[in-house]
This record gives sequence, structure tokens and C-alpha cells, in this order.
Amino acid sequence: MQHVLPEGYSVGGYCAGLKKWEKEDVGIILSETPATTAGIFTVNKFQAAPVYICKEHIDNNICAVLANSGCANACTGTEGYENAFSTLRQAARRFAVQSSQILPASTGVIGKQLEVTKINRAIEKVETGFIEKHLQAFARSIMTTDTFPKIVSRQLSLKKGPATITAFSKGAGMIAPNMATMLVFILTDVDIKKSLLHQMLSQAADSTYHSISVDGDMSTNDSVFCLANGRAGSIKGKEDYFYEQLKGVMEESARLIVKDGEGATKLITVEVKSAPSKEVAHGIAMKVARSNLVKTAFFGEDANWGRIISAAGSYEGDFDPRPMEVYIGPHLLFKNLVPLDFDEEKVTRTLQEDEITVCIDLNQGEAGARAWTCDFSYEYVRINADYRT
Amino acid sequence: MQHVLPEGYSVGGYCAGLKKWEKEDVGIILSETPATTAGIFTVNKFQAAPVYICKEHIDNNICAVLANSGCANACTGTEGYENAFSTLRQAARRFAVQSSQILPASTGVIGKQLEVTKINRAIEKVETGFIEKHLQAFARSIMTTDTFPKIVSRQLSLKKGPATITAFSKGAGMIAPNMATMLVFILTDVDIKKSLLHQMLSQAADSTYHSISVDGDMSTNDSVFCLANGRAGSIKGKEDYFYEQLKGVMEESARLIVKDGEGATKLITVEVKSAPSKEVAHGIAMKVARSNLVKTAFFGEDANWGRIISAAGSYEGDFDPRPMEVYIGPHLLFKNLVPLDFDEEKVTRTLQEDEITVCIDLNQGEAGARAWTCDFSYEYVRINADYRT
Repeated sequence: MQHVLPEGYSVGGYCAGLKKWEKEDVGIILSETPATTAGIFTVNKFQAAPVYICKEHIDNNICAVLANSGCANACTGTEGYENAFSTLRQAARRFAVQSSQILPASTGVIGKQLEVTKINRAIEKVETGFIEKHLQAFARSIMTTDTFPKIVSRQLSLKKGPATITAFSKGAGMIAPNMATMLVFILTDVDIKKSLLHQMLSQAADSTYHSISVDGDMSTNDSVFCLANGRAGSIKGKEDYFYEQLKGVMEESARLIVKDGEGATKLITVEVKSAPSKEVAHGIAMKVARSNLVKTAFFGEDANWGRIISAAGSYEGDFDPRPMEVYIGPHLLFKNLVPLDFDEEKVTRTLQEDEITVCIDLNQGEAGARAWTCDFSYEYVRINADYRT
Repeated sequence: MQHVLPEGYSVGGYCAGLKKWEKEDVGIILSETPATTAGIFTVNKFQAAPVYICKEHIDNNICAVLANSGCANACTGTEGYENAFSTLRQAARRFAVQSSQILPASTGVIGKQLEVTKINRAIEKVETGFIEKHLQAFARSIMTTDTFPKIVSRQLSLKKGPATITAFSKGAGMIAPNMATMLVFILTDVDIKKSLLHQMLSQAADSTYHSISVDGDMSTNDSVFCLANGRAGSIKGKEDYFYEQLKGVMEESARLIVKDGEGATKLITVEVKSAPSKEVAHGIAMKVARSNLVKTAFFGEDANWGRIISAAGSYEGDFDPRPMEVYIGPHLLFKNLVPLDFDEEKVTRTLQEDEITVCIDLNQGEAGARAWTCDFSYEYVRINADYRT
């Protein structure tokens, strides 16, 4: 599938040699027109140098993003800040913008200093553009244990004409609610007020990036940016439509992150229906999505409804367990507090699929929520027992 | 090591054939003198039949505990209650007590009905006593994926003379704060008021059974009972001493549960020191203890301090990350927001040990807390991908 960039952007990736293997590891996003920008960041008490810098720059109109993998530039002290600024100055020179108009983003090992010389050399050499090879090169430059580059793009139709939203993301491990080692760069060419963009991004994040779990761990570097450079005209009169499209792109990119979770073999959607409130629905969905026992059962293709109800029942908020029903795919497994006689063979066939939906119908209200998770495999343990060394 | 029972108790276990393999699966505790009893139970919304029954019986003076493994009697509807009561009636007849003076406890697969005939036959046949073989038989009768029976006993000295506290426990998986598939039976011969016993049990549980994590999952059947039959005399004037001894027994049995966590190869103590409050100390300790990334790093014997600080930093409450220090064993790895140069070889030797302490010194107050966890191995995934089938 061909992906497109919104008007006025170009992107690229370059192999600076920050990773052991020869792959792109420095990425650039450029916007010809300074873009209205909103961002959300990890709430971890230990935040990486680039996160601190982004929080200072995010109020400016943004012209560039400088991203790297192979090094998180977290827990690197004042040297880490100085290194990050040094690379921003290099990018500012090369692309004729202000340093304060650039957002940095890093992902990789914590506690290692940035290799500034290598990155600065990459900044000099990187070629940016807007065709598929450039998009792929950028998407690969932010990968860590990701196994595939993640690009989602969608065309909209505004009053003035067509517009585009394109999201690049990376995930793999340390993915949890309130984000994780998750980097997401959303580019669009619509014209939108900063406060509205921020509000839409935050609200849509609750039901997308904050509704996924790979391992329940939160990182020091999580960042989601949305740049809107206005080239395709205003969203005025189409605010709801734009919000739905933005949320759609965010949901798709969130699903890709989970699908490519470390060691994942299956993407599991946990849908909670007819809940007394949105909060309860989200709380129960996340309890199930984060349960190691549920996740290992899916890896084992085992219709273990008992672990699903245990996880749902561990939600601390108030709900009535009695009317709850549990479905795996189309199969009703649990109702009236007891399991039903179900056809194990049919359910097992559903469990053998790559994408599975667990539906929890609480039968006690109007609210709903979804969460996405992956199964938990030997491979997750292998990857994470070895990662640093 | 020989374990002892407090005065006036006898215990036993019998192989009723509830498990696939030929092992004890029905256990009995008898107290000659009706015992003052306190209990704490799972807060899961889906609670097993025996948990509901215990909550009704716990206000009575208790003469017996009837425990079984191989079947949790959870999600079994009214049939589950009737089955549990039927076994209680059988035990009441055999041991000449009231049904309402018996506490039932079940552990095993969820959603399966109790095999009443087998259990009732076991109740007829079981031989109880107070020597090591009886203690071992009871401890084995409550095992599920546990690999060893768990008995802790400690002798105290009261005014009237010696007294004893003995705890039997089982754990393995679904172990989380607020308990899990954890059954603990604490027996003592001291004389203590019910309200004080309950207060001591609850308070000590916060820093023991509520401070451990195997996989973060909470079960439908968790129960901790403490029976005190008064045979060895009153604790009057020695309340603090008794509390410390009780807490000591509970901590030791909690550690055994973690040590035998599913797939565990190491016991990890997470100690948080100099915290602004007990709540913050406990919160940070549990974030680290529950982190899958920390747990897989320990399995890989990797000095991955970055995951420890990420997990600590994900604690939502208020603390200052700047003065925090992180030690693995005696080795200081992190200070002033940056990692130190440490001797990888020496740290690796510490990581190769069976028991490891992670110390997080917040350097900002007087409070402290400890949590216990185990490493996360391939074996955890294997056990839990296969368990039901």
C-alpha cells in the first residue's frame, strides 16, 4: 500500500550507526510552513532529555522533528541535554530553522550518551522527500524491537479540498496506558487552532494510546506529537469530522503498536459494553488487557474465561458482576455467574486466528470502551531477558 | 526441619482424586477448643462459593477448616454452594462439630463443580495428627502449581509459658497485592480478643501478603485465616511482641509464596528507604515488584537499572526523583539522575544468586516499605499457556 504525506511535509531516515545492525536510526520530519503543534508526554518521574526539551519547544510553531533510535538519551544528566541541543543546532543550520522550532525524540537504551558526531553527520547527509521510500526510511529510523515500520495515512475532504493525516509510530515494549516507549508523529495539513488541536489529541489519546498494553510498563521517553501546518485549509464547520478522522488514524496506529508488541502472535481487542460509566468500562477493559494470565492463555489458545472474569472482577470500581456476559469472538462463554456449555473446538478455531475480540457485556448501562493487547509468549521473555546486553 | 503445631490442633491430608496426579487434595485442620478467628478475603467481584460461606462463618468460633485443591468452586452458581455445604455437613458429622464452625477453602480450576462424593469419602478417611507427616500431608493438600509445601512455625514465650504460631500457605500463580490464589492458614494457641486479632492480621497483611507479586493477577478464592484457640494463655502485656512474631511468620510465609512463584528462579526483595511516606514507599516498591520488564531482566541476570528507575518513576504519587539512589545488592548503580560506572562482573555475580535485594533510597524522608517478587521466566509462560487444558 502506498502512503501519502500531507502537503508541505518531507521526511527521511539515515543510518548513522547508532544501532548494532546497519539500519536507519536518525529520522527527520520537515514542515515548509511552521506548524501548529500539540504534544503529550510520558508522566514518568524520570523523563529523558528530549522530553524536557520538547516541553519547552512545544508552544512554538514547529518546523522540524529530529528523531533517533538506538539511544534514549534518558538518565544522561546535563551532558544529555547538551548533546541533544548540539544535534538540534546542527539540524537548525542544515534546514535553516530555529533550534526552538525543532522537537527532538529519542528511543533505545537508557543511560547511554548520544553519539553526537554520528548524529550530526547523519543530519548533514539525510535526504528528505515525500514518496514512499522516504516515508519508509523515516518509519524505520524510529524502530527499536519493532518488527515492521508503522505508517497510517488517511485522506479527508474539507471545504477547500482534500487534506491528509499521516501517523508514524513505534512501540514494541514498555507499552502501557499513559504511553510507554512509544513515539508517535502525526502530521496533517489542516488549519486548526492550537488549543483545539491539543484538546482533540488528548481526548482521542484516552481511547487509543492510553487504551493499549503490551507489558504494562511505562517508559521515560513516550511522546506523541501532532503537527498541523494549515496548507490544506481550515477545519471550520467540520470539527467533528476531523476529530473522528484523527481518532481513526490514532486508533489504527495504536493497534499496529500492539500487533507488533514484543513477542506478540495475536492482537486482542477487549470490548466492554453496557457499562454504568465510561470510567468503569475503560477500567475493566484495561484490567483484562493487562492481565498476564489472560495474555498467556491467549498465547496457549486456551478458552480460559475464568482468567478473563477474574481480571474483570479485580477492577476496584463499582459494578454488579451478576449480569455480566463474556464472549470470545461470537461465542458466549459465561453468563449468570456461571460458564456455559460451549463447543471447545469452535472456540479453539476462533483462538487460532491472528485477531481476536473478547467482549464483556455488563448489561447495566450505556457506556462502553475498548482496549487492545497482545498475547504473552516465550519470545517476550527471550527479548526482555536479553535486551540490554 | 521439624515444624510444630500449636497446642490443641491436629491436621491431615488425603488423596481424594480431585487432581490428575495422585497427590493429597483434601486437607483438614481441627481445633479441640473452638478458636477465636479472623479472616481476610479477596476483593475480586467474582468470589468463589467457599469465600461467601467463610464470610458468614467467620464470626463464629471455629473448630475446623476443610480445604481442597484441584477445584476452586468458583463460578459454580447455587450448585457450588450446595456442594460446599454438603461437604461441610459431612465434616461436621465426622468431627462432631457444627457446620457453621467450619471454614471451607478451595483452590484450583475455576468453573468446575466440586466432586462431592470424592471429597466426602476423603473426609471419612483422612487421618489427622500433629507430627511432621500430618503437617506435610496438610500442606501438600492445598498445593496447585506450587512445587513445595509451605509451613512456617515459630515458638513464642508468653507469661504462662511457651506458645506457637504455625502458618500453612499455598500460592504459585495469580499472586498479587490484595492477595490472589493464595490460601494461608495461621494457627496459634494464644488467647486473644477477636477484634485485636483481626486488627493485627489486617495490619500485618499490608506489609506481607499485600506486598508480594508473582504476576499481578488477583484470584476469586484468596483467603487468609488466623485461628487462636487460647490453649497457651493470654497475650496480655505482650501484645507488641505477639504482633511482631505474627508478622514475622506472615512475612516468612509470604516470601515462600513468591520464592515458589510460577516459573520463578529467584526471589527479589525490593526495599524502598527514606521515603516521604509509607504510602509512597509501598507504591514505589510495588511498581518495581510488578514490572514485567524488571522481572524479565532479573531472569536474564542483567543489571538493568534503567527498568528499575522507569518502574519506580511510573508511580503516580508525589516524590522527588532527583535524590534517588538504586542499589542491586551492595552495588550502587544510579545516583543524581545518572548511572554510575559499576563493575559489571561483580554485579552479575550478585544477580546470579537465588535471592537478590534491590534497594531504592529516596533520600527524602523517614518512611520505608518492602515488597517481594520473583523473576519472570519462559517457564511462567509455559505453565500458564497450558494450565487449563
